[in-house]
Amino acid sequence: MSYPEWKTGTTTPTIGVFDSGFGGLTVLRALVARLPGARFAFLGDTARLPYGSKSRRTIARYAAQSAQFLVNQQGAEFLVIACNTASALALDAIQDAVPVPVLGVIEPGAEAARAASRTGDVLVIATGATVESHAYAAACRARGLRALEKACPLLVPLVEEGWTDHKVTAEVLRIYLNELNAEAVAQGMNPDTLVLGCTHYPLLRPLIERAVPAGMRVIDSAEAAAEAAALLFNGRAQVSNEAARPGQVRCFATDSVEKFERLGSRFLNQPTGKVELIDLGG
Amino acid sequence: MSYPEWKTGTTTPTIGVFDSGFGGLTVLRALVARLPGARFAFLGDTARLPYGSKSRRTIARYAAQSAQFLVNQQGAEFLVIACNTASALALDAIQDAVPVPVLGVIEPGAEAARAASRTGDVLVIATGATVESHAYAAACRARGLRALEKACPLLVPLVEEGWTDHKVTAEVLRIYLNELNAEAVAQGMNPDTLVLGCTHYPLLRPLIERAVPAGMRVIDSAEAAAEAAALLFNGRAQVSNEAARPGQVRCFATDSVEKFERLGSRFLNQPTGKVELIDLGG
Repeated sequence: MSYPEWKTGTTTPTIGVFDSGFGGLTVLRALVARLPGARFAFLGDTARLPYGSKSRRTIARYAAQSAQFLVNQQGAEFLVIACNTASALALDAIQDAVPVPVLGVIEPGAEAARAASRTGDVLVIATGATVESHAYAAACRARGLRALEKACPLLVPLVEEGWTDHKVTAEVLRIYLNELNAEAVAQGMNPDTLVLGCTHYPLLRPLIERAVPAGMRVIDSAEAAAEAAALLFNGRAQVSNEAARPGQVRCFATDSVEKFERLGSRFLNQPTGKVELIDLGG
Repeated sequence: MSYPEWKTGTTTPTIGVFDSGFGGLTVLRALVARLPGARFAFLGDTARLPYGSKSRRTIARYAAQSAQFLVNQQGAEFLVIACNTASALALDAIQDAVPVPVLGVIEPGAEAARAASRTGDVLVIATGATVESHAYAAACRARGLRALEKACPLLVPLVEEGWTDHKVTAEVLRIYLNELNAEAVAQGMNPDTLVLGCTHYPLLRPLIERAVPAGMRVIDSAEAAAEAAALLFNGRAQVSNEAARPGQVRCFATDSVEKFERLGSRFLNQPTGKVELIDLGG
């Protein structure tokens, strides 16, 4: 796996974490748990979400502006793109826009799928734009896996409605996963691994675990990305090993701070603290 | 009802119709049916949708830019804001931004509810931002009606998924409408009218008609706005009475033209034609 080089002289490096909304807080949660000595600046570009229904050109412009804020204004020395759509469509644009290493969620997700799958056949659920990019299929193919991807556009709104343990959500998951399985069978595949290719989906993990066939492994790309970042850091940086401190996480949003604070704590699994409103223009 | 003054010297005036997405095509459809002699320029600000989850300040900026495009670039002599959220939160900002009359969907929707209701108690379903603005409640109150509003954030994604005649959508509607009715009863209301306060909802009208109690009137704010516009035009302008012609409708979008063309025809009830991509910045 080719991940970005990263070196720092500080013991409390600042890691920038970026998402179109607050779903990426599931990645931040996993990062905080693994890197208790780091500082984090999280930006949710909530004025322009969702990226999942927009074009590559637009997503690249928005993501580059957001990355520049984290590096230039917040001093981030490393960026984690905690957004599958931006990772799929704009990783190159972000790397061109900032002088620090950038890690997306697609490659770690595909790597975790490779480690988990015995049959080599993998299913991926994600937003429309992530699926249309076929970024997961390409990352899986590069690892000798076959991947079948499916857009599940109702899952993000269901999570944001708070219906994470609701019969309607269970039914929607059943419909989506049945369609995906039927398509896999029609293509002669024997899938044994399901990748959650959207940072909202970890909140549906209990429902998803109940909906998949017995024995299917469920891979969370948020966890996989945090794991990859932690490996990089522990190998290269002198990250302090203290417990999480107040002020360790600062959250920024381009709009709807109140909604971010209200819903974000469910994703971060702790209060987000005061979310700071910023203006990226547009 | 105080509607904008409007005069024109031309027999084929251009009417600008604006929405954050393509839901407003349901208003355009109703306008085309009533004003066959007019030309229409429709703009969907699809790069920045949905407005329904954003703040008043952001919505006002986006809507003003969109209105200026229709007036300054497309020569619109009259604007219909075919978006409940923008009508609720940004009508003043739009009126300040352009020198032509502007009609929103809220006032016509409330006026139609006044005409329909015998008990004076009205229910409204809409997006989160429309409900939080309480624009329908205020417009109803000004007409002597009591209104109870409910945000139904899953309905737009369900329409866009194409599940307009689907058991999951029927179940979601049942849940939302039961919650709304229970709240109305708790408040001592006796509602007999339901306002569809979002331009996506007319596509759910058959399911909604089956879900509401017998005798409840369903008011479509898209139809009501088109009716109000047609009354204004037929009173004031020499609109030609010919049948609809090719080229009568031009559609513009700020992103995702392909999705607009694919889904838009369901809302417009005829092909959208080639949708032209424009850049409003941001």
